[in-house]
Amino acid sequence: MVAPPGVDAGERPVIRSTNPGLHFGRAVSLLRPRSRPAAGVHPSADVDASAQVDATASVGPQCSVGAGSRVGPGSVLHPQVVVYPDVEIGADCTLHARVVVREGSRIGDRVVLQPGVVIGGDGFGYVFDEAGHWEHLPHSGRVRIEDDVEIGANSTIDRSMFGDTRIGSGSKLDNLVMVGHNCEIGDHSLIAAQVGMAGSARVGRRVLMMGQSALAGHQQIGDGVFVGARAAVHGDVAPGTRVWGTPQLEERRWFRSIAVFAKLPQLVRRVRTIEKKLGLRPPRDAADD
Amino acid sequence: MVAPPGVDAGERPVIRSTNPGLHFGRAVSLLRPRSRPAAGVHPSADVDASAQVDATASVGPQCSVGAGSRVGPGSVLHPQVVVYPDVEIGADCTLHARVVVREGSRIGDRVVLQPGVVIGGDGFGYVFDEAGHWEHLPHSGRVRIEDDVEIGANSTIDRSMFGDTRIGSGSKLDNLVMVGHNCEIGDHSLIAAQVGMAGSARVGRRVLMMGQSALAGHQQIGDGVFVGARAAVHGDVAPGTRVWGTPQLEERRWFRSIAVFAKLPQLVRRVRTIEKKLGLRPPRDAADD
Amino acid sequence: MVAPPGVDAGERPVIRSTNPGLHFGRAVSLLRPRSRPAAGVHPSADVDASAQVDATASVGPQCSVGAGSRVGPGSVLHPQVVVYPDVEIGADCTLHARVVVREGSRIGDRVVLQPGVVIGGDGFGYVFDEAGHWEHLPHSGRVRIEDDVEIGANSTIDRSMFGDTRIGSGSKLDNLVMVGHNCEIGDHSLIAAQVGMAGSARVGRRVLMMGQSALAGHQQIGDGVFVGARAAVHGDVAPGTRVWGTPQLEERRWFRSIAVFAKLPQLVRRVRTIEKKLGLRPPRDAADD
Repeated sequence: MVAPPGVDAGERPVIRSTNPGLHFGRAVSLLRPRSRPAAGVHPSADVDASAQVDATASVGPQCSVGAGSRVGPGSVLHPQVVVYPDVEIGADCTLHARVVVREGSRIGDRVVLQPGVVIGGDGFGYVFDEAGHWEHLPHSGRVRIEDDVEIGANSTIDRSMFGDTRIGSGSKLDNLVMVGHNCEIGDHSLIAAQVGMAGSARVGRRVLMMGQSALAGHQQIGDGVFVGARAAVHGDVAPGTRVWGTPQLEERRWFRSIAVFAKLPQLVRRVRTIEKKLGLRPPRDAADD
Repeated sequence: MVAPPGVDAGERPVIRSTNPGLHFGRAVSLLRPRSRPAAGVHPSADVDASAQVDATASVGPQCSVGAGSRVGPGSVLHPQVVVYPDVEIGADCTLHARVVVREGSRIGDRVVLQPGVVIGGDGFGYVFDEAGHWEHLPHSGRVRIEDDVEIGANSTIDRSMFGDTRIGSGSKLDNLVMVGHNCEIGDHSLIAAQVGMAGSARVGRRVLMMGQSALAGHQQIGDGVFVGARAAVHGDVAPGTRVWGTPQLEERRWFRSIAVFAKLPQLVRRVRTIEKKLGLRPPRDAADD
Repeated sequence: MVAPPGVDAGERPVIRSTNPGLHFGRAVSLLRPRSRPAAGVHPSADVDASAQVDATASVGPQCSVGAGSRVGPGSVLHPQVVVYPDVEIGADCTLHARVVVREGSRIGDRVVLQPGVVIGGDGFGYVFDEAGHWEHLPHSGRVRIEDDVEIGANSTIDRSMFGDTRIGSGSKLDNLVMVGHNCEIGDHSLIAAQVGMAGSARVGRRVLMMGQSALAGHQQIGDGVFVGARAAVHGDVAPGTRVWGTPQLEERRWFRSIAVFAKLPQLVRRVRTIEKKLGLRPPRDAADD
């Protein structure tokens, strides 16, 4: 292809693109393809007799696949993946080493789980028993990971009490993310590292939650919301809003308040000056210096 | 049983309860019992000849149990649990897939560890050596997990330098929690997801620490304290107190301060109005807009 | 040795030291040496025929070592470590149970990885495709862990897109730390538990980052910087600075602002008193009570 006017590419080949990031990534994938383990079940893997592994799937060394579970065509289980009983894994998934998928979970197609991800741990729900001790509520629900979801290393997605904890199609989660029981994340959302969501939180479609942000239980975040890094959301957030802070404020308000926060000692001095001028005495324990 | 007056249960059977959450959970457990792996050691497990596994315990595929370790009656090790040497695991415990218990740890009865939990990693304690480089202090202590403790997926409990890091009887920890070396958590406390405790922190009995909260090293939290979500505690907290914020304030004070924080720009404007009325000039770098 | 003047050590032997912490630690290591697994490859381990394991190294039960990978002299792989293809591990390293090292990673000498560490997960980098869906950018770079680095349980270090994510010589990371793609941490830095670093962050030499602190993407932290617990750093930080807060302020400013924050309701009352004296009316929605 020809370089754009005014660009001298010399002898080098030229690729013109309306979306350079996307096409650059695809070029890299073509030039440095990842090697893919061969199809078949490694002899050291422990696959239950009632499990169904597609002939084109790859189950690596020391994997464990429980009774009645299914692994779809083209999917790859790297070494030491543990699949509990009654799990369904779709087509062309990649489960990296040491992923655990607990009983009953549903994994769609083209899902990528980085090493150490835990799908389907029991949710954190307790009530007092007669003696005033915490008793665990049974979590007999499941986790449903839809198509094209990707989850980062050592993240944890808890199973629900009933129904599903759901990660919507195309959503991407970073490392060390915590998704509580009965949460729902809509399609095409992006959840950065170390984010935490308490039980029954609902996140809309195309939401961005930046690093270390958090969401209290039973809150609802509308479609297209942006949650800034380290924000902690209590209360619902309307679609399209941008929020920051603990607890969250609308973006512009938070930036203004935080600017004043940095100058609070000065503000106190201004008030003190006024009080002096008016002959007022500040309270004894005033934080004036 | 008969429905309470005014409730029409139709033909359905009725259970009347003074603690509906508790009894509902127990009913679910009866109606949907979890399947339990069969007793015995799976042929693919690697159990040291000097380890003692009770005949009623279940050691799953590809587990590893080190020299001199003991697994008590009725306990279940799901696939790929790693038990280092000299570990004691009591009766009726459930260790989910890929749990690691390092050397010397003591696990009581009826303990539940979700997938990926690490018990007994070396504590984070370093001193400068002669060259000004960090040298690790040996952590020859242990972790002691008492009866009825439950710990969430991928949480980590570090071993102590001497003595025990202790999780008290009946306490429940959520996912991705970090408990540093030499910490002590009292009985029946509840620690939500992504909480962090630095070394030698002490948490009392029946404490609630909400999600992403934290505790600085060597601090003491009294019995019955409530630590709000995302609070970061420096300094001791008296029994029964409720705290929020970074650093923490007593609950009511924090809610008041945070309410003013949201209106700081307005407060600055009010001060500016007063200054104008009095003919005072604000400082040059005032954060007035 | 003789006790210092004025100290009565009785019959006990005396060690006099200019660095008691360091020498105490070394004494403990001598008195309670850790047992070291025997050299050799455990029969249950799966080591690719093209991998090279030094004869003095120890590869434990159910480990998996991929094609072309190398394990240096004296290094110990505890049970169930997964080493992907094309990895180099130096001399005298300790990889605890369930560590995962993904393809192409480079690990120096005397490196210690606590249980559950993940080295080389894919970075969190996405662009929109033609349909407005997130497409993952290939991460064909590597992770380089230099000599004497130690990393805590369940921490995750992501691989870069190109070049290396680098952890500098002698640096120590605590549990549940997240280091994003293309980050660089200088030598002899200390990173406490649950710290998060977004992509391409740069941390200098001898930096201290305290628990749960964070660093936004592409920011630069100079040598010798101290980042207080829970601080969230946006923007570069000059060498030798001490910062706290979200977003960060220089230490003294933050302590002053936070002191005023705790008394904000009082400050509002002072302003109200002034307004009354001057006959001014506060705005309707003032946060006065």
